[in-house]
Amino acid sequence: MIINGPNLNLLGKREQEKYGTRSFEEYLKLLKELYPAYTIDHLQSNVEGELVTHIQEAGFAYDGMVINAGGYTHTSVALADAVAAVPAPAIEVHITNLLTREPFRHTSLIGRSCRGSIMGLGLDSYRLAIEALRVIRQK
Amino acid sequence: MIINGPNLNLLGKREQEKYGTRSFEEYLKLLKELYPAYTIDHLQSNVEGELVTHIQEAGFAYDGMVINAGGYTHTSVALADAVAAVPAPAIEVHITNLLTREPFRHTSLIGRSCRGSIMGLGLDSYRLAIEALRVIRQK
Amino acid sequence: MIINGPNLNLLGKREQEKYGTRSFEEYLKLLKELYPAYTIDHLQSNVEGELVTHIQEAGFAYDGMVINAGGYTHTSVALADAVAAVPAPAIEVHITNLLTREPFRHTSLIGRSCRGSIMGLGLDSYRLAIEALRVIRQK
Amino acid sequence: MIINGPNLNLLGKREQEKYGTRSFEEYLKLLKELYPAYTIDHLQSNVEGELVTHIQEAGFAYDGMVINAGGYTHTSVALADAVAAVPAPAIEVHITNLLTREPFRHTSLIGRSCRGSIMGLGLDSYRLAIEALRVIRQK
Amino acid sequence: MIINGPNLNLLGKREQEKYGTRSFEEYLKLLKELYPAYTIDHLQSNVEGELVTHIQEAGFAYDGMVINAGGYTHTSVALADAVAAVPAPAIEVHITNLLTREPFRHTSLIGRSCRGSIMGLGLDSYRLAIEALRVIRQK
Amino acid sequence: MIINGPNLNLLGKREQEKYGTRSFEEYLKLLKELYPAYTIDHLQSNVEGELVTHIQEAGFAYDGMVINAGGYTHTSVALADAVAAVPAPAIEVHITNLLTREPFRHTSLIGRSCRGSIMGLGLDSYRLAIEALRVIRQK
Amino acid sequence: MIINGPNLNLLGKREQEKYGTRSFEEYLKLLKELYPAYTIDHLQSNVEGELVTHIQEAGFAYDGMVINAGGYTHTSVALADAVAAVPAPAIEVHITNLLTREPFRHTSLIGRSCRGSIMGLGLDSYRLAIEALRVIRQK
Amino acid sequence: MIINGPNLNLLGKREQEKYGTRSFEEYLKLLKELYPAYTIDHLQSNVEGELVTHIQEAGFAYDGMVINAGGYTHTSVALADAVAAVPAPAIEVHITNLLTREPFRHTSLIGRSCRGSIMGLGLDSYRLAIEALRVIRQK
Amino acid sequence: MIINGPNLNLLGKREQEKYGTRSFEEYLKLLKELYPAYTIDHLQSNVEGELVTHIQEAGFAYDGMVINAGGYTHTSVALADAVAAVPAPAIEVHITNLLTREPFRHTSLIGRSCRGSIMGLGLDSYRLAIEALRVIRQK
Amino acid sequence: MIINGPNLNLLGKREQEKYGTRSFEEYLKLLKELYPAYTIDHLQSNVEGELVTHIQEAGFAYDGMVINAGGYTHTSVALADAVAAVPAPAIEVHITNLLTREPFRHTSLIGRSCRGSIMGLGLDSYRLAIEALRVIRQK
Amino acid sequence: MIINGPNLNLLGKREQEKYGTRSFEEYLKLLKELYPAYTIDHLQSNVEGELVTHIQEAGFAYDGMVINAGGYTHTSVALADAVAAVPAPAIEVHITNLLTREPFRHTSLIGRSCRGSIMGLGLDSYRLAIEALRVIRQK
Amino acid sequence: MIINGPNLNLLGKREQEKYGTRSFEEYLKLLKELYPAYTIDHLQSNVEGELVTHIQEAGFAYDGMVINAGGYTHTSVALADAVAAVPAPAIEVHITNLLTREPFRHTSLIGRSCRGSIMGLGLDSYRLAIEALRVIRQK
Repeated sequence: MIINGPNLNLLGKREQEKYGTRSFEEYLKLLKELYPAYTIDHLQSNVEGELVTHIQEAGFAYDGMVINAGGYTHTSVALADAVAAVPAPAIEVHITNLLTREPFRHTSLIGRSCRGSIMGLGLDSYRLAIEALRVIRQK
Repeated sequence: MIINGPNLNLLGKREQEKYGTRSFEEYLKLLKELYPAYTIDHLQSNVEGELVTHIQEAGFAYDGMVINAGGYTHTSVALADAVAAVPAPAIEVHITNLLTREPFRHTSLIGRSCRGSIMGLGLDSYRLAIEALRVIRQK
Repeated sequence: MIINGPNLNLLGKREQEKYGTRSFEEYLKLLKELYPAYTIDHLQSNVEGELVTHIQEAGFAYDGMVINAGGYTHTSVALADAVAAVPAPAIEVHITNLLTREPFRHTSLIGRSCRGSIMGLGLDSYRLAIEALRVIRQK
Repeated sequence: MIINGPNLNLLGKREQEKYGTRSFEEYLKLLKELYPAYTIDHLQSNVEGELVTHIQEAGFAYDGMVINAGGYTHTSVALADAVAAVPAPAIEVHITNLLTREPFRHTSLIGRSCRGSIMGLGLDSYRLAIEALRVIRQK
Repeated sequence: MIINGPNLNLLGKREQEKYGTRSFEEYLKLLKELYPAYTIDHLQSNVEGELVTHIQEAGFAYDGMVINAGGYTHTSVALADAVAAVPAPAIEVHITNLLTREPFRHTSLIGRSCRGSIMGLGLDSYRLAIEALRVIRQK
Repeated sequence: MIINGPNLNLLGKREQEKYGTRSFEEYLKLLKELYPAYTIDHLQSNVEGELVTHIQEAGFAYDGMVINAGGYTHTSVALADAVAAVPAPAIEVHITNLLTREPFRHTSLIGRSCRGSIMGLGLDSYRLAIEALRVIRQK
Repeated sequence: MIINGPNLNLLGKREQEKYGTRSFEEYLKLLKELYPAYTIDHLQSNVEGELVTHIQEAGFAYDGMVINAGGYTHTSVALADAVAAVPAPAIEVHITNLLTREPFRHTSLIGRSCRGSIMGLGLDSYRLAIEALRVIRQK
Repeated sequence: MIINGPNLNLLGKREQEKYGTRSFEEYLKLLKELYPAYTIDHLQSNVEGELVTHIQEAGFAYDGMVINAGGYTHTSVALADAVAAVPAPAIEVHITNLLTREPFRHTSLIGRSCRGSIMGLGLDSYRLAIEALRVIRQK
Repeated sequence: MIINGPNLNLLGKREQEKYGTRSFEEYLKLLKELYPAYTIDHLQSNVEGELVTHIQEAGFAYDGMVINAGGYTHTSVALADAVAAVPAPAIEVHITNLLTREPFRHTSLIGRSCRGSIMGLGLDSYRLAIEALRVIRQK
Repeated sequence: MIINGPNLNLLGKREQEKYGTRSFEEYLKLLKELYPAYTIDHLQSNVEGELVTHIQEAGFAYDGMVINAGGYTHTSVALADAVAAVPAPAIEVHITNLLTREPFRHTSLIGRSCRGSIMGLGLDSYRLAIEALRVIRQK
Repeated sequence: MIINGPNLNLLGKREQEKYGTRSFEEYLKLLKELYPAYTIDHLQSNVEGELVTHIQEAGFAYDGMVINAGGYTHTSVALADAVAAVPAPAIEVHITNLLTREPFRHTSLIGRSCRGSIMGLGLDSYRLAIEALRVIRQK
Repeated sequence: MIINGPNLNLLGKREQEKYGTRSFEEYLKLLKELYPAYTIDHLQSNVEGELVTHIQEAGFAYDGMVINAGGYTHTSVALADAVAAVPAPAIEVHITNLLTREPFRHTSLIGRSCRGSIMGLGLDSYRLAIEALRVIRQK
């Protein structure tokens, strides 16, 4: 289960020099082809509380979660609590390397509740996160 | 009126050693039996803005509010503003003693707008909060 | 397009000595009469994520945005990202002078993504913001 | 056992608009009538170290403690250590809502060692604290 | 009365990509034509204490002040005290959006004593400030 | 009433290059001769809580208090509360200029509750404090 | 020599509830009558650098200085350096108790270079400062 | 090229519940089998400056670097400078999720100079880092 | 002379896994046997001011002091001043390694006035402190 | 052009152990002899705003500036803005090594706008600054 | 095993008023005579990473370590990790009382991983550290 | 003696727009020609501890040191201690103006132990540093 936070629905449209020109939907199709053995679903919401609800549901229904909480990454105690409250392991993902951006993007509250974190590799950060979930599952 | 914030819908399911095994619904039934003279309603939402709306409505319609804002307790200016904007007095409630948890849980923005605060007594924090509202009302 | 954040639906009702007695709807009618050449629409939401969505839509559809993010002004990375992601210029507006209020209201995350900022002039801050957008447009 | 810290002997005399006009002794009589089944004793001291000694003694002799450490709440490691060192559970109590006062009153060192905390309800904060101890005892 | 602080006498000459190519004198002529009903005077000084004196005099002699304190905005207690000491209302003005510049420009000491603040709109920030003073006057 | 805090009983004995060679008792005799019209009493204690009690008593019995809280100056909320709770005005006194010593001596919690503060003039700080109380009384 | 900083020329005119209704000139006449044996001169300037020059001159020409640096108290390294550079001892003076005002008024850079400090006693703070200089001189 | 920092030579020996029981050498063999098309070399040093030298050399000789700087991650400007000075892209790697450990491990100076960062997946973090380098290379 | 601060009278009774099961009295007997050539006395008090008095007296009467100020270690300016005011050298002692406990225990105000500091060795920290005093004496 | 800030007119008179016994005028004569090919002028002012004006004028008229802003070094945004606004390159100079003095002298706002900085070499810092300007000019 | 960090090879040569005139080699001979039953070895290095390696080796080969990490005490995560990774207990040692020196020497990262800490007793701090290791061994 | 820290061996190769295209070796030849009367040696190391050793040796053998500690400038207590421990005076040098770079480069620990500091003048900073050493020597 891939859960995307605020403004990630604009991928491919906004600030293309930073986030690339591909939309997430196109990339998702690719991902599904790469991992036919897995059910890969995708949910996006701009609303912090809806993301909490999605995590609550996915966290009991799926084997793992890939989460890019966008702007909520740095401030949302509620999302961090949701991730900590469910059994499925989560991998935090970011398209850009947050350490090269504004200082308020250097810390992650949500990362405290995740098993691991991957960032800076464009949309391929998502593919590596799925690899990471496979690693966790084999243990 | 009892207003519960994010992840409190998981009560009884998540991290039972910290939050206990009872769901809030079971506890609510008990509360209603204890205070038959009062109309005790309950609303839960994971969405910060919906909580703002609930407080706006309840704050004009009820005699008092019991609020557990969960993860929004520490960061939500919007919720604090909503509590300050309505006539009904509010009591802040927490199931655990936040001072024994992570540092970012030691401060409460919402508490500034409430009349009082009760924490650390499990679900019974809610019952004491209703007692507290009765105290305020008698004055 | 005017976008109002949490608790601004209570204007005219709450803390009248601070925010005045006029509701925003009454004021909006006035604004429309003052600027018949412009299409002035108005959206209010208490939900941070809905505001993100409104900004995403308005930012592509309108020539400019006037944004009062209320309590989200100081903490919302998601709103700041949304404003930065769309082509329409935005003006930040506040009814009161935030510098004379609590310290946590002295900084604005959203203002970083806006073109300008106007505050302290009551509801007329909105009219000046429309003037500001006209200035930007002429350049 | 109720333990009161510095300046609480002035209750009813000092700053009546903030702390009310009732002295603690009058209130204590009321409390004893409300809970005839319990032995409720009361000790007040302005001296931090005497409070440490009282907590050491009461913490072994009584079933529970209600502590209002007054001005020592925010700085006393010694009192926090004393509460942590004894078997009886303690409830922290404050007459006013400390979050609406000076910033140096927003944190509580002593609260870290207590089971719960109740504040903002005037002298009735003490009654609710006794209720809180009853809750703890039943578990 | 418009009062300009240090380095604003270089307008049109320095860093034109940031501050534009028009000098303040040219702009002032325009302003006077736009508001023939008002006496608009202008004073510039690089000296903090002279600005204090100008504000003291203008604050008793004029109906309102438009103040751009330049580099003194962020550190001058003396200017803030002067604005607070006189009866005429003041509007703070900045040509650029300070929130997009260095961190030490994000706070304004002077703004605490002003009625409102306008920034980011180039020299037209001054015109909007005069509009703002008209708003205040009508109340 | 003069109230001296911890270690001030060592005056004349300890660190003579900093505090001088005269004991406080000798100086007190001088003071009494200088102000025969006033009853000048003196209390010293090393115990924070005893100082609280002294202030509580003197604050109702005398016309004014001169307080040198020594090492408790910088940290004692309890002493500050005591001074604020009593009707007699207090003047804070220090023998040395605290601003030239360690950083933790640069702030004074107790000074917030006092009417004025005098420091750096050796034992004569006390005489000036009595002058200060006379000033206050005449108003 | 008495040296007054910015806005002190407005004494008696501005914020009378805080600073009183007497002008400094009236008070100075009184002072001169009280101390006929001394030459008491007075200089006021709103300009930080002029104050530096006054201190440089007075510091070599007079036996002592009484300095109220107004808004420059908290930020002026230049004034502190000037006081430290001259032989005459200085006493820092403030009309109000700065500890009861905004946090940025709680620290004094200039006080580090002075011999002592007196505050909170209205204009009589100046008289006590002259007393303080007499104390220093006798040593 | 894989570059490992201080104490990583103890892998498999120290704190096995945190870092696992496999030594890095065993894991390296596995990696080489997985990616036969690549030359994967490995260097470990406890000396910060030797790591700087290794990065300088590898950064010109190899197509990419995988760097786990161990305890130097959080404080080494020299290592960050070295990574920034060479043409080969680097991926930062950590075996554990640093956000769940001591606060001084939450920030990474070195990450600022890397293209991306992967952590929390045990030794498999290294394999994912190689995948990440392949992603970068294809672009 | 050994001076023990608050809660150290509970040694052997409280939190035995942290502080051990021996009382200080038992240990003192041992110490006296080990050093028959020295007069080793012991004073314990929970009251900060009494400890100040003890240090004032012991500091003139004994050749050296061993001080464990317990919870006052981190906040007591008064105790630090007392140690600095007396001629006898002092050694600071702690039973546990404070650096492995809560952050507010990582700093020591009292240690600034002591000659040396020993911690983490259980009750034997006291014996080593006596050794340390012997070292100082021989110099 | 050499521009000196507050209190530098006292050179040779004040604190000779820190600043030496030579006045700046004597030193200037020497400098002129050393560099006969250059026009070396000198301006000193205690007034921050006059220094701003001097920099504005010199910055367009001379090939380079040597600036010792004295006590304004650490706080003056206005001076930093002036240096940045003019074409002539500036070298910051200090007579003493500021890093060995009070912490508030460790940072330099003005240095951000200068090309280089030289300190700690007594008056010869000025000569080296002229050398530095020659270096810049040759490039 | 005694491990000494940077600049400790200069003992007896540098800053003799602070560190004494004896070299460590002389002192070591003394130590060996005092404890003939123990094998006491000594290693000094200026290189942080070599110290890491020494600790890794000694931590498995010896029964205990005495570590004075010199200037690395306050910043080296790598050394702290090394101490934590090996089975032998370590005692932290400092020749001077760090609390009386610069603020950046008041904290110890390495101390977190040690069993105890001894400082301020000159070279005899080492002897007491060996005593401390004997204490630990007997338990 | 010139001592260069980490990554300065890459001069002329890395980030040429920032550091120039000349290698340090080429520049050194020039320096030797400019100052034939002096023995100018050069040592570079990426290893902090080797730099400590170089400073220890050069500090006793040479008349002066020019030190560019690169990335260790901001964090190395060990290097600062080494400079302070040796008799030869040191001048700190930086090629770029550190105040215009990242905030963590704005402070210098090593500068505290040096006599002076020169920065921002490219490689010619080294030449000026030699001039500075000549100045010191003549005194």
